Amino acid sequence: MTDALFDAGLLAPGRAGAPAESATSDTAFLQALLDAEAALARAQAAVGRIPAGAAHAVTAAADASRFDVRDLALRARGGGNPVIPLVADLTAAVPGEWRPYVHRGATSQDIMDTATMLVAARTLGPVLADLDRTARALAVLAAAHRDTAMPARTLTQHAVPTTFGLKVAGWRSLVLDARDRVRTVRDSLPAQLGGAAGTLAAFHDYGGDPTGSGGTRPGSHDTRPSGPAATRPGDPRGAVAGAGGPAATPPAATDAGSAGPGTTGPAPARPGADAAAFSAERLVAAFAHETGLALPTLPWHTLRTPIADLAGALAFTAGALGKTAVDVLTLSRTEIAEVTEGAGGGSSAMPHKANPVRATLVASAARRAPHLAAALHCSLAAEDERPAGAWHAEWEPLRELLRLVGGAAHDAAALARDLRVHPDAMRANLRLTGGLIVSERLAAALAPLLGRDRATRLLTDLARRARAEGRTLRELLAETDEARALDLDELTDPTRCTGSAAALTDRALERR
Amino acid sequence: MTDALFDAGLLAPGRAGAPAESATSDTAFLQALLDAEAALARAQAAVGRIPAGAAHAVTAAADASRFDVRDLALRARGGGNPVIPLVADLTAAVPGEWRPYVHRGATSQDIMDTATMLVAARTLGPVLADLDRTARALAVLAAAHRDTAMPARTLTQHAVPTTFGLKVAGWRSLVLDARDRVRTVRDSLPAQLGGAAGTLAAFHDYGGDPTGSGGTRPGSHDTRPSGPAATRPGDPRGAVAGAGGPAATPPAATDAGSAGPGTTGPAPARPGADAAAFSAERLVAAFAHETGLALPTLPWHTLRTPIADLAGALAFTAGALGKTAVDVLTLSRTEIAEVTEGAGGGSSAMPHKANPVRATLVASAARRAPHLAAALHCSLAAEDERPAGAWHAEWEPLRELLRLVGGAAHDAAALARDLRVHPDAMRANLRLTGGLIVSERLAAALAPLLGRDRATRLLTDLARRARAEGRTLRELLAETDEARALDLDELTDPTRCTGSAAALTDRALERR
Amino acid sequence: MTDALFDAGLLAPGRAGAPAESATSDTAFLQALLDAEAALARAQAAVGRIPAGAAHAVTAAADASRFDVRDLALRARGGGNPVIPLVADLTAAVPGEWRPYVHRGATSQDIMDTATMLVAARTLGPVLADLDRTARALAVLAAAHRDTAMPARTLTQHAVPTTFGLKVAGWRSLVLDARDRVRTVRDSLPAQLGGAAGTLAAFHDYGGDPTGSGGTRPGSHDTRPSGPAATRPGDPRGAVAGAGGPAATPPAATDAGSAGPGTTGPAPARPGADAAAFSAERLVAAFAHETGLALPTLPWHTLRTPIADLAGALAFTAGALGKTAVDVLTLSRTEIAEVTEGAGGGSSAMPHKANPVRATLVASAARRAPHLAAALHCSLAAEDERPAGAWHAEWEPLRELLRLVGGAAHDAAALARDLRVHPDAMRANLRLTGGLIVSERLAAALAPLLGRDRATRLLTDLARRARAEGRTLRELLAETDEARALDLDELTDPTRCTGSAAALTDRALERR
Amino acid sequence: MTDALFDAGLLAPGRAGAPAESATSDTAFLQALLDAEAALARAQAAVGRIPAGAAHAVTAAADASRFDVRDLALRARGGGNPVIPLVADLTAAVPGEWRPYVHRGATSQDIMDTATMLVAARTLGPVLADLDRTARALAVLAAAHRDTAMPARTLTQHAVPTTFGLKVAGWRSLVLDARDRVRTVRDSLPAQLGGAAGTLAAFHDYGGDPTGSGGTRPGSHDTRPSGPAATRPGDPRGAVAGAGGPAATPPAATDAGSAGPGTTGPAPARPGADAAAFSAERLVAAFAHETGLALPTLPWHTLRTPIADLAGALAFTAGALGKTAVDVLTLSRTEIAEVTEGAGGGSSAMPHKANPVRATLVASAARRAPHLAAALHCSLAAEDERPAGAWHAEWEPLRELLRLVGGAAHDAAALARDLRVHPDAMRANLRLTGGLIVSERLAAALAPLLGRDRATRLLTDLARRARAEGRTLRELLAETDEARALDLDELTDPTRCTGSAAALTDRALERR
Repeated sequence: MTDALFDAGLLAPGRAGAPAESATSDTAFLQALLDAEAALARAQAAVGRIPAGAAHAVTAAADASRFDVRDLALRARGGGNPVIPLVADLTAAVPGEWRPYVHRGATSQDIMDTATMLVAARTLGPVLADLDRTARALAVLAAAHRDTAMPARTLTQHAVPTTFGLKVAGWRSLVLDARDRVRTVRDSLPAQLGGAAGTLAAFHDYGGDPTGSGGTRPGSHDTRPSGPAATRPGDPRGAVAGAGGPAATPPAATDAGSAGPGTTGPAPARPGADAAAFSAERLVAAFAHETGLALPTLPWHTLRTPIADLAGALAFTAGALGKTAVDVLTLSRTEIAEVTEGAGGGSSAMPHKANPVRATLVASAARRAPHLAAALHCSLAAEDERPAGAWHAEWEPLRELLRLVGGAAHDAAALARDLRVHPDAMRANLRLTGGLIVSERLAAALAPLLGRDRATRLLTDLARRARAEGRTLRELLAETDEARALDLDELTDPTRCTGSAAALTDRALERR
Repeated sequence: MTDALFDAGLLAPGRAGAPAESATSDTAFLQALLDAEAALARAQAAVGRIPAGAAHAVTAAADASRFDVRDLALRARGGGNPVIPLVADLTAAVPGEWRPYVHRGATSQDIMDTATMLVAARTLGPVLADLDRTARALAVLAAAHRDTAMPARTLTQHAVPTTFGLKVAGWRSLVLDARDRVRTVRDSLPAQLGGAAGTLAAFHDYGGDPTGSGGTRPGSHDTRPSGPAATRPGDPRGAVAGAGGPAATPPAATDAGSAGPGTTGPAPARPGADAAAFSAERLVAAFAHETGLALPTLPWHTLRTPIADLAGALAFTAGALGKTAVDVLTLSRTEIAEVTEGAGGGSSAMPHKANPVRATLVASAARRAPHLAAALHCSLAAEDERPAGAWHAEWEPLRELLRLVGGAAHDAAALARDLRVHPDAMRANLRLTGGLIVSERLAAALAPLLGRDRATRLLTDLARRARAEGRTLRELLAETDEARALDLDELTDPTRCTGSAAALTDRALERR
Repeated sequence: MTDALFDAGLLAPGRAGAPAESATSDTAFLQALLDAEAALARAQAAVGRIPAGAAHAVTAAADASRFDVRDLALRARGGGNPVIPLVADLTAAVPGEWRPYVHRGATSQDIMDTATMLVAARTLGPVLADLDRTARALAVLAAAHRDTAMPARTLTQHAVPTTFGLKVAGWRSLVLDARDRVRTVRDSLPAQLGGAAGTLAAFHDYGGDPTGSGGTRPGSHDTRPSGPAATRPGDPRGAVAGAGGPAATPPAATDAGSAGPGTTGPAPARPGADAAAFSAERLVAAFAHETGLALPTLPWHTLRTPIADLAGALAFTAGALGKTAVDVLTLSRTEIAEVTEGAGGGSSAMPHKANPVRATLVASAARRAPHLAAALHCSLAAEDERPAGAWHAEWEPLRELLRLVGGAAHDAAALARDLRVHPDAMRANLRLTGGLIVSERLAAALAPLLGRDRATRLLTDLARRARAEGRTLRELLAETDEARALDLDELTDPTRCTGSAAALTDRALERR
Repeated sequence: MTDALFDAGLLAPGRAGAPAESATSDTAFLQALLDAEAALARAQAAVGRIPAGAAHAVTAAADASRFDVRDLALRARGGGNPVIPLVADLTAAVPGEWRPYVHRGATSQDIMDTATMLVAARTLGPVLADLDRTARALAVLAAAHRDTAMPARTLTQHAVPTTFGLKVAGWRSLVLDARDRVRTVRDSLPAQLGGAAGTLAAFHDYGGDPTGSGGTRPGSHDTRPSGPAATRPGDPRGAVAGAGGPAATPPAATDAGSAGPGTTGPAPARPGADAAAFSAERLVAAFAHETGLALPTLPWHTLRTPIADLAGALAFTAGALGKTAVDVLTLSRTEIAEVTEGAGGGSSAMPHKANPVRATLVASAARRAPHLAAALHCSLAAEDERPAGAWHAEWEPLRELLRLVGGAAHDAAALARDLRVHPDAMRANLRLTGGLIVSERLAAALAPLLGRDRATRLLTDLARRARAEGRTLRELLAETDEARALDLDELTDPTRCTGSAAALTDRALERR
């Protein structure tokens, strides 16, 4: 049974069922490859290089459900990538007269890279939605606990009081940082079109559309690239937002591409370029337009800025969510018990367990993401016009990174929404050290009376005695001459020692 | 269609179709999980803790084809691992009377870790076979080219002559190093059994087999652990060598386990242990025996030596094969052309291309493996009795590492078998520098005549002139007084400058 | 001899002597720690919390040459970081009356993180300058070789012709991408001030300046944070641009800070905040101003966006430069010889060797950077208010990453400036395949005559014969009927097959 | 001041002052490079290729204190490694007549790799000693707490009772696993000698010793390599065990090497090898003998098994120690307080803090080591006879890994020796869940009465009620009919629920 060879997420509870899983499946990749081929055909029709009928035919045939993903996977071994067998199958799926126009002028990497960007764009949509949900839930939580005092912990030890609101505001600020970085990258993902070695030569070599039906001058997309790597011509959201089916390339665009490029087509030529370049540049712009991806300045077969940008943003996002996760894990400890996951996970052995499963899975993703990003960073130094290995080493780590982050964002949203907070436990924990948690404040209060050195020494001594004798620092302090002038009630109340916590929380929550 | 969520290797031409792929599929993992549950039942029967009928029933039900892997994957989200829903389904698949004995006393991690070791053992078998095939093919190649001179290259430049035989002997020595390390690890993979927190307490808590049918004293497996982590009781090959199907647990073992533990059962008690420990120790030994895995000294839920050993051996193997791959890539370059892959891969754009695809895929695996090993090494520092995230972060990287290495070993075997060597090109390349490649030898010959400094200076000057004037070093040298006494024919023949290459090749090939 | 314990770059030829080396030395770090302490004192004086004299005294004492870096290193073991012993030594170096004001209210991490940002900012200045030099040199090179044809290589094989200009334009575009990313990060590096646990509580606890000399309302720095993580108040360049010596904090700023905060002080209160928050917020703004770093929204002890941003930008930069390096290494190969490093490195054994040493060292940096970035990404998931290990694991990897990238940028600038190009070799290499390199173009020309399939088949056959018979594709093609109608001179001239290479080069060079 | 460029450990409290620090300093590396050059001279004298006087002279000059490490570092930029300038300086330091024999026939990498192995061997000695001290201290601790019950924690939650003895026995088993792996690697570290490209050609080219004083047939070292990579001829401990100074190569060996190779020299020729190979093989054996390192089968310039073995063993050791560290950090938490570091670290802000500093630093090392190992694993796929970048990228990561592990082992030994254990806190924590911690045992006791399903359901319900009502599980259970038959005193006593913990501890402690 071939099914026996398929992975279905058995080892991946962190992403099973999450939107990022279906958006990155083999089938989704196959559809994206087909979308890229169809967009290429439409783009060539739009600039008058192939007949509109060919573009229609390729677009119609570009439906993943008609291809055998396992068979493609096996035949991919021959040339080292799945595009080679796919072009054969797609060509066979198109009526004979249009077959010469399938994949014409392109190289495997044009299709593979474009498909990868489509998959990334389609995955990052749900990721951004989940980050937004997470941020909103955390905002509610932070506001609700703006003044809920709890122990701050440093190097595992109680340090001074803080508030749960400030902690959550910090989590949220990381989520917003992640959202901003992911969004920036998402909006810059470029199409790839360079031909065999990035010169677009084959597009020159092949003559124009013999039917003469395409290629009149387009109108609206006259912006030039201005960002570091690329810009998006027109609104790309429609084309990339789809879930991976053929409908992801909207019929309207298809029709426009073949029937009326004069009104909806791609970027015009830039003035001053020679005729040959003119045409190729228009073709690339048309291709970017059809895919909904950004227009690259240069073919980027071995200029992997887009991959590095994805790696950086995704590794950061995993880590940002991981911060919340490790805090929830710590605060969930049986001895601390300041928070509980809404629906704790069960155990196969112990009936009473309510494990922080969401946090565990997010923490697990945060542990794995940096290594996947490192693999991608290692592929930046790719030799030649297309490399032997560096490129191939990107595919699975990038997919896995998208999945991991997608799963973690999905889990984080649920975690943030359902987290239960136990202010009573926080209050009880504040009392655990018998006043030691306010020793910094006591030192400040004693310093003007005793000098800083003597104040510190006194408190260090009392702290030692408190631990040894099982008494509170407050009791011991009350017995000293030095503390006679102090309002110990005020000074040793942890809830009055939270400094700027509330103000910082307020300020952080202003950010949108 | 659920299938749309399954991965079928589309992005993984390096392992699609390789034995390691099916040995590591979700279905293979599911079967290994079931094998672990069945082995546990048989082991408990063997030591008299549950009825033999229960062991029979669990073993009969433990057939992956009867379970829905996708459904398990989705339900695994609840508790964070797939064992929890699997225990429910396995229990339901067993006749009512035997249900209480399913998974009794175990924790999820016992089953998951044991299954992971089974999958590793079952994957490393084919890996070792492919490494052996690779080494044999390389031995033939090295012997055949024992005296084939070629340029040695250092920092990309021709250095001095070497032989292709020595180069290939080096490749082979790495493959043998890998084989030795993989074999050592494969033979030490331990079963896992500790119960909820590694104390085996639940196995004490549950009473013995009420039917009294099991647990007579076993005889033969009285060896104690002596390796660093574990030893294998009995011959494990049968149980772990299977390809992942339910037959991997041979019926014979099953029968023995349930019907006659007196003759084929696990390790006896060690003298001096108290009765309780006695029983638990016997149970663990019986479990190891049933799985065919090694007997651990301690439960290793958070003592992850076996994982680290796998990570180290697999990362090394990928890199060892990667060395051959990057050399083949270099020597295949159009300008160098000293070797060709037997069946070069095609191109979607260029009819003439014959790409070194096998080498590309192996090189790609070598680029990825270190990051997967790093992820596993990061999980060593796992807190508590079972950690929240570190363990979960191991599953997919370990599986991926097994697959990558399995695919690379498979490709390397084909690469080594089919590699075509072009001694003519090697000879031509030796002449490329017009004699500069023997300059080290000339320096040695001139040193006694001129002193080392003057000899070096003379050759450096001549080398510069040779490059500038497009003449050979030999011609220029022949015009100097200094070289009059030298036999330039002899000294500038690169094929006579290969030092100990042949002897080293011979010596290296003696290793088996 | 203590010196024996010091590292002096013996294993680091990639950065020895580069500006990034001195900017990241232990002494530079020590000075940055002292700068942070001095800035804190001046900031507290500026907002009226400590006497101006204390700020003067701390600033005067904050001179690295007066402290023993090795002794601090050893004493750092006690508390796990160097700030603790440094505060003791700095306090001792200040006149008695001002000692209570040293480090008042701060935590070690405030000083360490701020110093790290100062070191990063001071290192990234020279890095940016080197990236600019590299980009300028590459622009000259690309323009000069706009039309220099050479073989494009994919999967190590000649593919189609390209130009050296396009290749170099690609290198440059990566350098500019790196520059843009590094600059963005450099401009966002934030100061750190949070006190023991990020609540700034101690700054509340300690009373205001008893001398009443500070704290009148500041005027000019009223911008609020608006970027994702932080913004820079005022012009930070002066304070961070220094090379690490004490002069890096300009005397003018010091004077202003202590004598006239009313005119040059920090950000005003935000309306609506309570009085306590008001003061703390002003203090943080004053501190950011004194350091020249950006103003953070929240204390970021465990919100490590700035570290992740550095990791991402630096890993990308290393890889971007690494792309140039691996291309130079390939093109420098003896058999290819299309470029030479201006001054090749020597060899200890072979007089004739001229190794591509700069490229080797840059490539080496590109191999290491991803792992350092991964280490930093792993520390994002930092538990609690300050973590036990995650923070400590950042220090050396971040320093090493700054150094590596600094060294690589320095080497890349020299490499780009001095690279020698050999168009003759490129032309000769284009002829190597006897016309196969234009087979894609021939296929395009034959396709209308024969159909795509037959055209491809014909060329594949002829390619095989060409290789087998040692003849050129052109010769063989001229003998066929099919090619009779073609202008083979034109079609098989590789220099006429470079597609849009020149136009793409022009367009890429427009970017500044 | 040049010193300003030196690193003195300011950012490295985890290793400042540890033996591994001085054993890996630049000076130690310089000495090892010189030791390698001296060993080469002595080996060549021993086999009669150079005069004994030359060997004496080189050995006498090979004293690191006579060379300028910073100057060498800067000049290393020229050729990309420090050996090139060092050979120049060493030659100058030798009397004129012996200068031609310095470094004769060797390549930079022969010296650099051999020096790296010497540094590794000299570092691993102290590492092994610290691992032994750690294991011994943990054995004492485990035995002392063989029966000290404490909560086992899984996924951060109390699971079932365990013992502190079993936990510590687990830590120790990891330390022993690390020791075994480090020792195996330490004993296999090979010398490197291959000449320019691994053929040893130059050693053939240069004539024999004109003085005829060396080279008589050696006697005792007739073992052939039998291990995977290498074997040690004779006892290497003396030569590599030194602390890095010149005395590390014992004078006795020096004398023997130059004066009497007939009795103490290297391996004899293998029968059947030709005369030329004979000599080279003897030379390599003599060199291995002089260095005290193992004899390699082949030159390993690009066969990096020794580096990978070091990477694997060191990454494992860091992680193994990291496991102890993260457990100590968890158990040290203010709320848990089951252990305390003997001498907790102070805080710059809070007088009462006693931070687990040793555990923090060890945990920090465990976080970093995997990335350094990954960098080394990435260099395995090194092209050609010597690579351009892969080799250079090994030096600093390997040194850093040695240092990190050396520092961590040193800290771990102190941590294990001084750890204070608080059984009272463990007992108190066992009571925290009001009996839930024994619920697995209760389930086992109830199962025969109620059936497994009903038993589990009852306990899950009671657990929920216990949490909600703030009562203990025992109280609630006592009110049920179902529990009437049970001895609840016995069943709910956590100290009686530790299963095989004591027996497992005993067994683990048997291992030496």
